[in-house]
Formats: sequence, structure tokens, C-alpha cells
Amino acid sequence: MKYSMILSGLFLTCLNLKAESLASWNDSGSKSAIVSFVEEVTRENAPNFVRKEERIAVFDNDGTLWSEQPVYFQLFYAIDRVKATAPEHPEWKTEEPFASVLKGDMEGVLKSGEEGLTKLLAASHAGMTKAEFAEAVSDWFATARHPKTGRPYNEMIYQPMVEVLEYLRANGFKTYIVSGGGIDFIRVFAEEAYGIPPEQVVGSSLRSRYEVRDGNPVIVKLPELGFIDDKEGKPVAIVHHIGRRPIMAFGNSDGDFQMLEWTTAGDGARLGVYLHHTDDEREVAYDRDSHIGALDRGLDEADERGWILIDMKEDWKFIYPE
Amino acid sequence: MKYSMILSGLFLTCLNLKAESLASWNDSGSKSAIVSFVEEVTRENAPNFVRKEERIAVFDNDGTLWSEQPVYFQLFYAIDRVKATAPEHPEWKTEEPFASVLKGDMEGVLKSGEEGLTKLLAASHAGMTKAEFAEAVSDWFATARHPKTGRPYNEMIYQPMVEVLEYLRANGFKTYIVSGGGIDFIRVFAEEAYGIPPEQVVGSSLRSRYEVRDGNPVIVKLPELGFIDDKEGKPVAIVHHIGRRPIMAFGNSDGDFQMLEWTTAGDGARLGVYLHHTDDEREVAYDRDSHIGALDRGLDEADERGWILIDMKEDWKFIYPE
Repeated sequence: MKYSMILSGLFLTCLNLKAESLASWNDSGSKSAIVSFVEEVTRENAPNFVRKEERIAVFDNDGTLWSEQPVYFQLFYAIDRVKATAPEHPEWKTEEPFASVLKGDMEGVLKSGEEGLTKLLAASHAGMTKAEFAEAVSDWFATARHPKTGRPYNEMIYQPMVEVLEYLRANGFKTYIVSGGGIDFIRVFAEEAYGIPPEQVVGSSLRSRYEVRDGNPVIVKLPELGFIDDKEGKPVAIVHHIGRRPIMAFGNSDGDFQMLEWTTAGDGARLGVYLHHTDDEREVAYDRDSHIGALDRGLDEADERGWILIDMKEDWKFIYPE
Repeated sequence: MKYSMILSGLFLTCLNLKAESLASWNDSGSKSAIVSFVEEVTRENAPNFVRKEERIAVFDNDGTLWSEQPVYFQLFYAIDRVKATAPEHPEWKTEEPFASVLKGDMEGVLKSGEEGLTKLLAASHAGMTKAEFAEAVSDWFATARHPKTGRPYNEMIYQPMVEVLEYLRANGFKTYIVSGGGIDFIRVFAEEAYGIPPEQVVGSSLRSRYEVRDGNPVIVKLPELGFIDDKEGKPVAIVHHIGRRPIMAFGNSDGDFQMLEWTTAGDGARLGVYLHHTDDEREVAYDRDSHIGALDRGLDEADERGWILIDMKEDWKFIYPE
């Protein structure tokens, strides 16, 4: 008896089998669609069985794995970073968008348009080494708080989605983030928050340069846009980084449309999933007209394309980790 | 007895423990340096223990995992591809570098310089989808033969290096290719030849574009250079794709110098390894003055930097798989 228990325990560990433990999900259509799909592709000898190597699931980050309102959290980082380094830049008092940032005038920041946002990005994300940037972001996470919830930003991740990530990995999936947000920014917290290692984070990026400073090699972040990982960019980046077509894709906005389209156009079993932000009490309800994460074409076409729409209000017991 | 054998078998499988089986290696300093390093970083509680997640080993491809003489094998592909598609391009009969390619005049091809090689690259690697390219390369591997050995190109991989890859993976390492060659080209054969999956191949690339053709999404390879993964580009690409600093790096030329430098500049135990092509009988002996894969600065500095030099003639029992 003892031997057989040890044996079966070892077998389970070896084979990585795990029952679903989607504890924060209500028993709804969304949950059963996800579970059915996973059972379908992992059951050996089933017609839609997918070997482990091909079990790739991709997740958008902003609005899919954590919140994104009232603006992308990375923009809060940029603003706080400009404020923190303003003493070294007296010229910012009169130069836009910095003047607006320092006055706390978000309208003014947004009014500075693409040119202003690019300057803000360069000032807060470039001109330092990758290691220095990671340290600055890490320090920011330790102290910054969301204006509405008062939570640290890295605690505004969606508990039900963390459970999906764990459930998929327990079933042999490799889970990737494919985000319009910055690859270096996300890597700072993704391993701890989601269990997603840096090599499985794909995102937008600035160009960077290798330099040897006093015999010590560093990678310097340059103020030049490298790649924008949004819309048509997402499948391009997936193919570049992963080299295989995912079998599952999760998003929440029209920026994820092509990622879901690309994923579900492959042969065999495929699943596209959209999070629909329906919960105005526990989070923010938004879709077609949102200035961030608008879901319009996706809402129109999800049904005919066979994509699932998660109704956050109805499907989730909790939003954030307790 | 039976139970305990099963148990220990399961344990070994679970823990992924494996004795070294570098059967094609002579007992030399190179072999013991590699084995000592692996034992040092995998022994729990040892001062230089490295947790599994951080056990990243990176390998150059041309001249490190397979041969690269008399020219990079990818150039043979390009030439054969131009010949195969020439009937659709009558203008190539008079246009360089195509005219030289079609006459079999390698001198003429090389004389066309960077502009000529770029045209050759565009004609053989772009203007098709990623799937079409992969199929063309796969077909080529099935029929093309190396001019000197008569072997299929994907059988000109180094058996001792394949054993190193397997040995490292059996000890919890993730093995990556980081090559100046094309990422899409290498992915076609790397999984079968080296056991390296597409998501662990990093290389040079053309830009690409997402398109929906008659409702069917495709990724099109564009005739525009995206990234050159050589010299300073290698650490940049490593940080971009992997997001962690490797603890082992293997190369064979000055194009790998920065990759070894970046890898070995990290804290803790690190190992840089150069293959020195010393065997003029079983392969080709070349280093400082070679037109392909020159090793000059690396030869000068390997010793002072503590990098190993594999002497292919002395250290290896076999070059290619039997």
C-alpha cells in the first residue's frame, strides 16, 4: 500500500497530471469551455491530442492578466520616474510633456500627443542599462500604489487568470505573455506574479546596444523604438520568438484580435478567449468606446469565430488575489 | 528488489539526473573542464550551485554545432534556390549576382559584394510566407549534398557537441542556439538535429508582415534586414529573447567573442568555450585568417579570460555522427 502510494505520487509528479483547480471561477460556460479544451488536447489517443511541445498558450497582459485602467500601469511608472528624476532636469519645468507631468496635469500629458508620449518614454525607459532599468522598476513596484484601489500594482493581477496559467502549466502547456507593453518592464514582475519566466515574455521594445564600460559589459536601452507588439505585430512577434503557432490565445481588446485570429486559424483544436470587462463594481466596465483596451471588432466577431467571451462579473468569484 | 528498481528508475527520470555520456570525447582537459563545471553548478549546497531556471547555455551554430566550410551552408541553400527558381526570372541571366550564380561562378558571386549578397538573400529568403520558406528549406535538406563530403548538410553536425547538448539538458540546462545565421533557416532542422526547439533558436532575421489572404492569415518574409545576430548583436539578442544571462557559452569565431564576454562577465560560476578548428584531415583547419569564422582576438585572449579552447583534432574521437 505504501509502495503503491509512493509510486502513484511519483507517477503523477512525473507525468505532471493535475486536476483543474480553478477555485476563483464560477461554474459557467467559460470555465467549462476552457476545461473541455484542455482535456481534449491532453487526452492521449484522442483525435485532437496535441503533443506537449506544441501546447503553447499566449496571453496579452494589460487588461488580460492585470488591470489597465485608468491608464496602462507602465504609464504610471513613466510619470513617477519623471517626477523622481526631475531635479536632474531643470529644463523639464517648461518643456512639454514634462511640465504637465510635474504639475500632475494628465490632460496636458495626453494632449502632448504621440510626440509627447515618445519623449516621456525615452526619458523614463532609455539612457540607462537594462540592469538599471530593472532596478528602477522593481523599486517602483515596492512603493507605488494604484490611485483607485490603493494596492501595489503587481497585486492587481487577476486571480482567476493566475489559476488558468497554473492549470495549463500543470497540463504540460508553456505559457507566454505577448503584450503591447514593454518587454523589460513586464519581465521585472512576471515570474513572481504569474510564474512566467523572462524567456516567455514577448513585448514591445526599444533598441539596445552592447557596450563595454571599464571592462564591464552592459546592455544600454536606446531612445529608439524597436518593435511595437500590438495588433498585426503580435502574430509577427509570436512567430519570431516562439516559432510555433499557439493553440490557445487570451486577450481583451482589438489589439489582440490578430493574435486570436492567427492562433485559431491553425489546424486541429484551437481556442481563442476574450475577457470582457463587465464588472463596474469590482473593477471597471468597458468595451467598445474605451480609450484603453477597446473591444469592438472582437465583440462583433467573437461568436462567429467560435471565440469565448469571459464575462468577468458573472464568471469570476474574485478579481484580485485575497 | 523489483519495486526498488522501478522506484529508482522513476526517481532518476523525475530528477533528470544523468551521468555524463560524452562518448565521442577523448579524456582531455576540455572534457573534464566541461564536466567539472556542470557538476559544480548542479551540486546542491555547493557554493556555486545554480538553480535550474538559471541554467542557460548558448551555442553558436555555424562552425560550433555544424561545419561552415567552404562557405556557410545557408549560402548553398540560397544558390540552389536561385537556380531552382531561375526559370521564373529570365532577367537573372544578365543581372548580378544571379548571372554568376547560374554560371556556377562563386568568385563572381562573392565579387558582387554586400549589395549582391543582399540581392541573393532577398531572392532566396523573402517574398514568400514563413511556411513556404520552411518547406523550401526542408525540401533542400532532403536532396542537397555537401560538395566535399557528399553528406546531407544536416548530417554534418558535430557528434561531440550533440552529446554536450544532451548532457547539459539531462542536467537541467536549457540549450539555445544564438547564430549569425537565419532564425527561420535554423529552426527547420534544429529540433531534429540538436533537440533544440524553435523557441530556443535565436538568429538573424528579415522583417516580416502579417497578412490575411482570402481569410487565411500568413506571415510574409520581407526583403528588409531586421536584425543581424553577430558580434555585439549576440548579447543584445540573448537579452531580448531570453532575458537572463547564460552561464555557459560556446562559439568558434570572433563573431562569438561578445557572447562569451557577456556570459562570463556575470557573477558566480561561468564558462566560455571556443572550438578551435585544428583538424585538417577529418574537417578543415582554420583560425586567424579564415574568410569564414575567423578566430583571432579569441585565440589571443581565451587564456587570460579563462575560456576553454577545444582542440577538435585532439579532443574528439569523431567529428560527424556515424
